Amino acid sequence: MEFKVNSKELEKLLGKIIPAVPTRTPMPILENFLFEVKDGLLTIYATDLEISLKSALNIVTDENLKMVVPARLLYDIVRSLKDTTIHFKMMANKKINLVTDAGKYTISYLDADEYPEIPSLSADKDINEVTINGVELRHAFERGSFAMSKEEMRPAMMGTLFEFTNDGLRFVTTDGHRLVNMLNKNVKSLTNNQYVVPERAVSVLTKILDEKDVKIYMTKSYMSFKLNDIELITRLIAQKYPDYASVIPLENEYLMKVNTKELHDSIKRMMLFSTSSTRRVKFSIEKTSVEISAEDLDIGASGEEKVTCDYTGDNLEIGFNSAYVNDVLNHISSEEEITFRLHSATKAVIIEPVQKKESLDMMMLLMPVRLNS
Amino acid sequence: MEFKVNSKELEKLLGKIIPAVPTRTPMPILENFLFEVKDGLLTIYATDLEISLKSALNIVTDENLKMVVPARLLYDIVRSLKDTTIHFKMMANKKINLVTDAGKYTISYLDADEYPEIPSLSADKDINEVTINGVELRHAFERGSFAMSKEEMRPAMMGTLFEFTNDGLRFVTTDGHRLVNMLNKNVKSLTNNQYVVPERAVSVLTKILDEKDVKIYMTKSYMSFKLNDIELITRLIAQKYPDYASVIPLENEYLMKVNTKELHDSIKRMMLFSTSSTRRVKFSIEKTSVEISAEDLDIGASGEEKVTCDYTGDNLEIGFNSAYVNDVLNHISSEEEITFRLHSATKAVIIEPVQKKESLDMMMLLMPVRLNS
Repeated sequence: MEFKVNSKELEKLLGKIIPAVPTRTPMPILENFLFEVKDGLLTIYATDLEISLKSALNIVTDENLKMVVPARLLYDIVRSLKDTTIHFKMMANKKINLVTDAGKYTISYLDADEYPEIPSLSADKDINEVTINGVELRHAFERGSFAMSKEEMRPAMMGTLFEFTNDGLRFVTTDGHRLVNMLNKNVKSLTNNQYVVPERAVSVLTKILDEKDVKIYMTKSYMSFKLNDIELITRLIAQKYPDYASVIPLENEYLMKVNTKELHDSIKRMMLFSTSSTRRVKFSIEKTSVEISAEDLDIGASGEEKVTCDYTGDNLEIGFNSAYVNDVLNHISSEEEITFRLHSATKAVIIEPVQKKESLDMMMLLMPVRLNS
Repeated sequence: MEFKVNSKELEKLLGKIIPAVPTRTPMPILENFLFEVKDGLLTIYATDLEISLKSALNIVTDENLKMVVPARLLYDIVRSLKDTTIHFKMMANKKINLVTDAGKYTISYLDADEYPEIPSLSADKDINEVTINGVELRHAFERGSFAMSKEEMRPAMMGTLFEFTNDGLRFVTTDGHRLVNMLNKNVKSLTNNQYVVPERAVSVLTKILDEKDVKIYMTKSYMSFKLNDIELITRLIAQKYPDYASVIPLENEYLMKVNTKELHDSIKRMMLFSTSSTRRVKFSIEKTSVEISAEDLDIGASGEEKVTCDYTGDNLEIGFNSAYVNDVLNHISSEEEITFRLHSATKAVIIEPVQKKESLDMMMLLMPVRLNS
């Protein structure tokens, strides 16, 4: 059995699929690609049992076959080649020869029946479907993914909530210290369901999404993202997402408007001075300026700066984890001005762009830390 | 006591000096800069006891002072600032205030007498001096440094040999498996001495050398490199360098001329197939082509390619460590064509550029490995 494929086309295809190949796994079979050749179409699969990627390519062959080949070795060989035709020839003893103008390379393969089954959503009847723009989905992931929890205690918080509502598709991430809540009003869905997508699916999708539309298919256990030329299928986290709405304060009546970059530059400097154990930074907010200060008692260093603001409330001192403020500002840096909605030194703070968008609502929430003064 | 300095000028200066600050050291004092203000000149020093860096800057002050300040904290603060004037004010309790338009930062300092003494070569009478172009010196380091030994068994081989001869300045590096030997004929010296410069001095100098001339001062124990605006002083390795000339074969009569990039591309692919323990690659050399082949028995993979060559000897099979061939080719890649001078499968091979240069002789030497066929 044999087939021919252009090296650069194959390199492109393998490069898209390889993110699903786990780097460390107790199941060595997952370190392979599944190759399936059927009616002149080469489909390549990879999976880590949580997410699967598949993509296809038309090739020159008269035969059908399935085989399992070492993923990283094959990818390294193919991308080290010039633009040339690779002739795959299956030999005896589970070997494949890859023959080009310049050389001959031999690798081992395994039988396809040793490879785990890749879930297919088309077989499921209870299937929902929506369409979302690829860039909008990527932006939602880019802005929210930092707030997903890394703690295995509460598995649902280790993912991104997709909540379909009458107003649009809502994305929520939180680790209990900060929360990101975005509502994309361009996505219309007839259902009212919640799905929790694991971190690995979010991070791989962030890398491969482009400006094209994405079709999302959902069942109770799986979600599939169909891009132009690649499909990602992910297991969903089978846990109810916490009631995020209950932690969002509704009566934060004090507004502080600041320039995002000015505040961020100041926070980055103050991180140098905040004690490494608490990372605490203090905001002393007055009508027209906020003093940001931090002190590292371990090394005997401290810093204080003033940033211009426009504040509607009573003078307020409030503390934050400087790394968390930095995270929030990193992910809202495309907004020139932001508003902090505050109530007191102990209540959660809401951070929003001053400039509202028609199709996207966004808010971030940050828990304060106690000041010991 | 106080002085003023522009933030961007200080940032540039600290950035040049900080490479000498050790990242891990049992002597915390070395994690500091020594600041010396004298007659309107701020001189900053750093040392790890092996190498020292110093550089200076004119500043606005009427006072003289010495102090020791935390290197990384100060550098991080200064480079986080905009272009502004920093006002350094020494306070009670060993604190310094750094005051700018936007904020105030406080750090601790130590007394200068806790800082180790930086060697000064001008005090030495037995001093030799040569001048070398900065780019030529950097190229010598860039081409040869990979072959310095990492094994502490033979300390001299962990450095770069500077050998002053009647023909010029020779640089030699070797770890016993490969050797690089360069003779810069532009450097004239009246002495006939050998000096062994430690790896850390070589790697820091490689980063800071530019097209300007460098003055090198030498005593028995120290070497100083005076660049335009910075001086590096290094301890020398106090061991005799091995007799490198005795390992260079003189009667390698077979010449194989190849295109450097073609051979290198092939070696990079063959590295994918060479067994990870031996990394062996085989050259089967004939009149007009050399077959490069490798086999990884652990994963059942193999590869072979033909590269065009022009060979004057009898057919020869010779084995190399593919990683060492790759290192050599990486550091001779600016040469379009190279010659392998061979004798037999067990004798060291000399690799030279086909195109000779007037002012620089260069050769690399590579030990073969045994083929078990």
